[in-house]
Amino acid sequence: MSLSTLAPEHIRAIAPYQPGKPVSELAREMGLNPADIVKLASNENPLGMGPKARAALEAEIAELARYPDGNGFELKAKIAQKFGVELNQIVLGNGSNDVLELISHAFLQAGDSAVYSEYAFAVYPLATQAMGATGISVKAVDYGHDLEAMRAAILPSTKIVWIANPNNPTGTLARPGDLIEFMELCPKNVIVVLDEAYTEFLPAAKRSDSIAWLKQFPNLIVVRTFSKAYGLAGLRVGFALASNEIIDMLNRVRQAFNVNSLAQAAACAALDDLEFLQESVRVNNEGMQQITAAFRRLGISFIESSGNFVTFHCGDAKLLNQFMLERGVIVRPLAGYGMNNSLRVSIGLPSENARFIEVLEEAMAD
Amino acid sequence: MSLSTLAPEHIRAIAPYQPGKPVSELAREMGLNPADIVKLASNENPLGMGPKARAALEAEIAELARYPDGNGFELKAKIAQKFGVELNQIVLGNGSNDVLELISHAFLQAGDSAVYSEYAFAVYPLATQAMGATGISVKAVDYGHDLEAMRAAILPSTKIVWIANPNNPTGTLARPGDLIEFMELCPKNVIVVLDEAYTEFLPAAKRSDSIAWLKQFPNLIVVRTFSKAYGLAGLRVGFALASNEIIDMLNRVRQAFNVNSLAQAAACAALDDLEFLQESVRVNNEGMQQITAAFRRLGISFIESSGNFVTFHCGDAKLLNQFMLERGVIVRPLAGYGMNNSLRVSIGLPSENARFIEVLEEAMAD
Repeated sequence: MSLSTLAPEHIRAIAPYQPGKPVSELAREMGLNPADIVKLASNENPLGMGPKARAALEAEIAELARYPDGNGFELKAKIAQKFGVELNQIVLGNGSNDVLELISHAFLQAGDSAVYSEYAFAVYPLATQAMGATGISVKAVDYGHDLEAMRAAILPSTKIVWIANPNNPTGTLARPGDLIEFMELCPKNVIVVLDEAYTEFLPAAKRSDSIAWLKQFPNLIVVRTFSKAYGLAGLRVGFALASNEIIDMLNRVRQAFNVNSLAQAAACAALDDLEFLQESVRVNNEGMQQITAAFRRLGISFIESSGNFVTFHCGDAKLLNQFMLERGVIVRPLAGYGMNNSLRVSIGLPSENARFIEVLEEAMAD
Repeated sequence: MSLSTLAPEHIRAIAPYQPGKPVSELAREMGLNPADIVKLASNENPLGMGPKARAALEAEIAELARYPDGNGFELKAKIAQKFGVELNQIVLGNGSNDVLELISHAFLQAGDSAVYSEYAFAVYPLATQAMGATGISVKAVDYGHDLEAMRAAILPSTKIVWIANPNNPTGTLARPGDLIEFMELCPKNVIVVLDEAYTEFLPAAKRSDSIAWLKQFPNLIVVRTFSKAYGLAGLRVGFALASNEIIDMLNRVRQAFNVNSLAQAAACAALDDLEFLQESVRVNNEGMQQITAAFRRLGISFIESSGNFVTFHCGDAKLLNQFMLERGVIVRPLAGYGMNNSLRVSIGLPSENARFIEVLEEAMAD
């Protein structure tokens, strides 16, 4: 007897998420010096973490033999103050990935369905499948979410609609007015997850006032992360804001100590470090200019992005990816998204972007 | 319509795990100075973390804007070397709690059942219920697991047997011979989880050679943690060892970046720090003597414990707990385990143990 047959069919069918290749792994595989490797594969902050977050983290190290505060009191108090919500409207996660899984775990079971867009973040179909529920993928328009078609795809069995805004890996953005209309027309017994992992990179004019919408739409969940603009990916911390009724359900499936102590301390301080956040956005805007200007110059088409990354089209992506890996540049293949002719590059420091452009030019001349 | 009704019945029925009260919370509630509070509530290491782990953690801070290595290559390589297993026999978790949830998620669904002992670690019934499966609680004998009765309780629907050894919160220990007999007689299509969170505190003579048993029993999962003897509770890292077939299923439901970078680095170094581990065990043995001697002197009965904590009987536990909280001593109420007349105290530093004993004496004189 095979022990794997003890697992339900929907578990055996899961193909796990493929993360961006770590620098250490490429160094091992290619015999490269880690210092010579440029990683632009995981939409991380090239500036590192902010000085206030780092100081808060270091102050917390002495307490590491203690369990974290399972209620995350101080971080939740800071979030409540900053975003104008109540403590009981917040759930913390081990990264926003954890928050997404809490949502699927609390609300999906066999027989249920969840709606998401083609090319939307890979965790939505995975988290749906992991609960034995059925995923409904809705064809994208210009690589972005077709909100009207997504609404039309909602079935009586649908419990969740997953929306990434901006979306990863395409960088596409829905307009605030279209999202409000979606919320108004969406059935009130369907939970809408608005995943705003990249919202800090948006100019104010393009940003949805999504947290204010919580008052109007008790079926809305807004998800945020500290892994992108705040530069804390390695620490793992994200959060969701929603009505207390939804948060209460998420807390029932949350592991008591899901967010480690250093992440809580650093995230708390990061929310106060507006200067670092602004600098991160500035570096991202300039890097986006640098890379897209090169794409235009080289005649490479790409998807206009509102994130800290950009997806470009390049013929055989597998080939170009391998070419780049051999030269110590890590970008992200998108075959898992059905995009075999595209790669996603994260915006790095000017020198990292330049190295990526250099290798890209080399590949085109090859 | 209430949004919580969108959650399955088994989710709505969950009463979340109640962690030990953090020092900061008690300080807020009672207006106490945190420095005056003694927390002996969560079986943490009173020595803190080891110097090697701390150095490794600090060296990793510069990389925190990067995602962790989702494959945990270096930590798994170290575990493989230390315990004589293959890389593909290891899964890492955000604490061993995460590992326990991976197991329930991968193997339990509605209609399945899981067996555990009365007074066994609270996460087993919770993780079982969270998947919509049925928990089968087997009456304890002298507060310990009745392995024969647990085997007899296995139904055709049973997928998992949870065994804590030593058990928390009772500190009871099964003999290696009895565990081997259990494994030999247990159906091969039932997964046995041997949770050894406290195994490092055992003298060699009492310790099961459980990892060697993996060769013989492909349905065995051994679970370990860095939160207890290794002193890394705040960082969140644990692991499971099993046949590759089981590990493969666990990886399908594992969040790609479930273990943060600092936890991976610190755990790696902690495995090399035998000196710190030995010192932790020595301090625990002496503290256990100190506290149980006081119990005997005061005529307080307790459960002989093989862990870094001891459960004692005290009449109205709620009353004594409140008395202690008001004096800045945090121990663990066990009402959630159906033990209304007992409290669990973790072994602390000699001075912390002395303060606990002092307040206990004060309560008895009250």
